Amino acid sequence: MTKTKPTVSNKDIALQTAMTLFLTKGYQATSMDEIVKASKVSKTNIYYHFKSKEELLTAMVDRLIARYERQLASIAAQEELTIEARLERIVSMLVANDDPIDVLGGCPFLTLYMQTAAESEYVRVQIKQFFDRQLLTLERLLEAGIRNQELRSDLQVQPTAALMLTSIEGALFLAKACDNPRILPNLLQGLFALLK
Amino acid sequence: MTKTKPTVSNKDIALQTAMTLFLTKGYQATSMDEIVKASKVSKTNIYYHFKSKEELLTAMVDRLIARYERQLASIAAQEELTIEARLERIVSMLVANDDPIDVLGGCPFLTLYMQTAAESEYVRVQIKQFFDRQLLTLERLLEAGIRNQELRSDLQVQPTAALMLTSIEGALFLAKACDNPRILPNLLQGLFALLK
Repeated sequence: MTKTKPTVSNKDIALQTAMTLFLTKGYQATSMDEIVKASKVSKTNIYYHFKSKEELLTAMVDRLIARYERQLASIAAQEELTIEARLERIVSMLVANDDPIDVLGGCPFLTLYMQTAAESEYVRVQIKQFFDRQLLTLERLLEAGIRNQELRSDLQVQPTAALMLTSIEGALFLAKACDNPRILPNLLQGLFALLK
Repeated sequence: MTKTKPTVSNKDIALQTAMTLFLTKGYQATSMDEIVKASKVSKTNIYYHFKSKEELLTAMVDRLIARYERQLASIAAQEELTIEARLERIVSMLVANDDPIDVLGGCPFLTLYMQTAAESEYVRVQIKQFFDRQLLTLERLLEAGIRNQELRSDLQVQPTAALMLTSIEGALFLAKACDNPRILPNLLQGLFALLK
């Protein structure tokens, strides 16, 4: 018996194609026909999995959020690392652009929110709850770092967590809008200096 | 002779109406006919000033940027204030929402960029240069504050300016996307603690 690579399902290919098109061209500017053409999955097959562009959007948002949350939870749970090292990894993970695609607004969640929040209550609520959970994760790590005396005892938990999350989000957008490669490294340096 | 209030021109009314509609409904979702209807200025009169929706957009962006830059320059030049007080006023001015309108993406520039950058090179360039100038203004104030020993001598100028601008931008978006009124006050507290 030979081992075979796990095959990528047509459903996965359709979702990945939709994600790339929604984030680089825009949700409104992308039609189901284009997704069919770009994915090379048959129309019948795509419509078997997703009845509409809206269904593709919600499945894609769920998948993207789940992917980020797995990474966040995995870093937050690395108890062999200091709190500071875990915070640094979380920030680096959030600003890292692993995908080679050129996301319209820098951050995929900002891009999806701006394009679909007005018409999709589901996307608006999922993105809101995702950001709320990110804030909570950062606040809990900061509290743990203060408790074990790793971080300054006078660090204000909620303002610092808000500063981290908002600056990451703003930096992703501004690095794109200003086309300025210095913004992200400058932000990381500024944030990490703040924790010490 | 009685004094008369300065009259608002039809051109101004058209621009203000276009701004409100572009920022709350979206540029693509707004037609020239809607601007005519909402402004109560005649179609002939609006088209006399602006040949197209694109012309209204560029005039509106110029006006919005000029308004913010006048405020920024006026605060930066208040030499009777400490550098810290001027930085605090700039941050407060940028996050303050004087307009009662509910801007789609929290920040008007982020909202316009996301909706029009793909089709309007002009808007993309103006917004980029506006953010670049904001960064420079913040950097110069931080340098002046370090020179006159008002701010910590080890404050890193570029990272701190980047942290201020990115967190303001991100906070405007997240306060809107998370519908969380604590984000902006938390950010201000976090940023001002950083400078001291």
